[in-house]
Amino acid sequence: MAEIKGKSGRHNETGRKKKSEVAVGVLGSGSFATAIVKMLVENCKMVHWCVRNEFVKGAIELRGHNPTYLTSVSFNLKNLKITADINELVSNCDIIVLATPSIYLSDAMDKLSVDYSGKIFVSAIKGIIPKVNDVVAHYLREEFEIGFRNQAVIAGPCHAEEVGMERLSYVTIATVEDEVAKTLHEIFSSSFIKVNSSKDILGNEYSAILKNIYAIGAGIANGLGYGDNFTAVFVSNAIREMETFLEAIYEAPRDVNESAYLGDLLVTAYSLFSRNRNLGNLIGKGYTVKSAIQSMNMVAEGYYAADSIYATAKEKNIRTPIIDTIYSILYEEQNAESQYAKLTTILN
Amino acid sequence: MAEIKGKSGRHNETGRKKKSEVAVGVLGSGSFATAIVKMLVENCKMVHWCVRNEFVKGAIELRGHNPTYLTSVSFNLKNLKITADINELVSNCDIIVLATPSIYLSDAMDKLSVDYSGKIFVSAIKGIIPKVNDVVAHYLREEFEIGFRNQAVIAGPCHAEEVGMERLSYVTIATVEDEVAKTLHEIFSSSFIKVNSSKDILGNEYSAILKNIYAIGAGIANGLGYGDNFTAVFVSNAIREMETFLEAIYEAPRDVNESAYLGDLLVTAYSLFSRNRNLGNLIGKGYTVKSAIQSMNMVAEGYYAADSIYATAKEKNIRTPIIDTIYSILYEEQNAESQYAKLTTILN
Repeated sequence: MAEIKGKSGRHNETGRKKKSEVAVGVLGSGSFATAIVKMLVENCKMVHWCVRNEFVKGAIELRGHNPTYLTSVSFNLKNLKITADINELVSNCDIIVLATPSIYLSDAMDKLSVDYSGKIFVSAIKGIIPKVNDVVAHYLREEFEIGFRNQAVIAGPCHAEEVGMERLSYVTIATVEDEVAKTLHEIFSSSFIKVNSSKDILGNEYSAILKNIYAIGAGIANGLGYGDNFTAVFVSNAIREMETFLEAIYEAPRDVNESAYLGDLLVTAYSLFSRNRNLGNLIGKGYTVKSAIQSMNMVAEGYYAADSIYATAKEKNIRTPIIDTIYSILYEEQNAESQYAKLTTILN
Repeated sequence: MAEIKGKSGRHNETGRKKKSEVAVGVLGSGSFATAIVKMLVENCKMVHWCVRNEFVKGAIELRGHNPTYLTSVSFNLKNLKITADINELVSNCDIIVLATPSIYLSDAMDKLSVDYSGKIFVSAIKGIIPKVNDVVAHYLREEFEIGFRNQAVIAGPCHAEEVGMERLSYVTIATVEDEVAKTLHEIFSSSFIKVNSSKDILGNEYSAILKNIYAIGAGIANGLGYGDNFTAVFVSNAIREMETFLEAIYEAPRDVNESAYLGDLLVTAYSLFSRNRNLGNLIGKGYTVKSAIQSMNMVAEGYYAADSIYATAKEKNIRTPIIDTIYSILYEEQNAESQYAKLTTILN
């Protein structure tokens, strides 16, 4: 961590500013970060965008396209303020959307040295922070003293590729502060984005992480030759396992059949855009885990999450036969075919 | 109805017979009926099969294949006793699986004139009986005095095509009698069929009907150009609407995320095998409802069900915005595009 840190107090006047006046920034330049920027330029005259990679930054500044992800999405450069410096981003913004892969977040945050008190941090990250082996909400609170009142989570079902195509998508924004919720609702809502509200920060964050693991599992099943009938059974067991996990982690009034939980699981487990599902599919078809990961251009968050979530489930004594099965294949070199043969006797 | 009718009393000794001794019959020769026969020949030395269509009956007797559905499934004729006469079927069997399209069941049952007291009727039909505008369980009870103790429902997720390929599938058998449940469990379980148990006859029957309507809706969305993100939101709203409907119709301890409810919805809404989804897809792409129906070789149960379920929802004052939308497109010549634009503002 850098030396100067401002303790994040109650949020400032952010919530009362008009959407055009709120300064919003995005950290990251992957597919979902790019999709977030696309959502925001619909409402904000200026979107601050922190892009670390010099090649990507240069290409966006030159052509108004991310050269690597969602390449067909065209930005008007008048609406973007691009920087490679997280401190510039945070200084200039009231709201900062964190949208890096989870494994890179701490690299970026460790460089943070400006005062960030009162600012709102919105996590669009669906993974575990390796440095602390914990979710983003806990990482921000424990390492940066950013309390839950200054946090929000943006959850799917929302594949970036479809946002790029302006296909109607619903996101859920979880935050405990009504004014923050209102502001985020305003800056994200558009002709192709509808916003649901929630107060369940941890539930939304964990479910977004769990669904990636289950998507790997659905992919493994597909790769092994199981059909649609089995996938439906697998997913219906997965949502029940997720409910059990979430209740054990953080009890709250929630309906796991809402879009942010079940919907996000469905889009990830069924969509051909899902990198987690694709990773599982390769493993099911017989690739080694290592070669399957290497063959993919993008990070499959579920791979890293499986390790941490498995440990949490064991530690808290939560019954998670599906997670256990996927973990054994990913990390214990167990044979996918025989592990799934066992799993089929447990599912119902 | 025919003249001689035996009131169906308590079930007889069926439940205590060994699986090889229980005489089982199947009524119908469509894809799911053929899949049911395939399941049963795994365990039963003889399966009685009532096939009305003379061409289909002759072809099965000659070649051991259904010439129209699941044509690649080969039967050993030594295991089949084929008849065109429902009275012969019922006389010879302890358990009769009803597997016609719902619109044809009453034609067959009206010919029933032998004593059927004590026999078990298992419905594999996922639709409304037009003659009484009600579900099979009520039809059998009201019109034939077959009480719920002599009934069972077999539910998915279970596309017939995958059963034909012996891909692992889970069925749920709902019955209130433990001995009947045990017998049915034995005769249906095999290397590619796992059996879940339930006591929720009406819930399983209604959910199997509702899911066909929602699958038409998912197909319409796809045909209109909505993407995976929206489909996930649509399905997560549909399972909540289904839960509301089921609770209003028949309150019972049930978890709609079990395979028979959510799983069956998923396989039907997401699978390319689903005829209901395909019907919706054609309508979404701009076909008239009439031409879409005519272009399909198989009956899309959801079309007929939508009319009856819509009326039930109105009568019982159940809030069903998705059903209402689909009904308006199917029966009121409303424009799919504008109706879905309205629906997107109601979903969340």
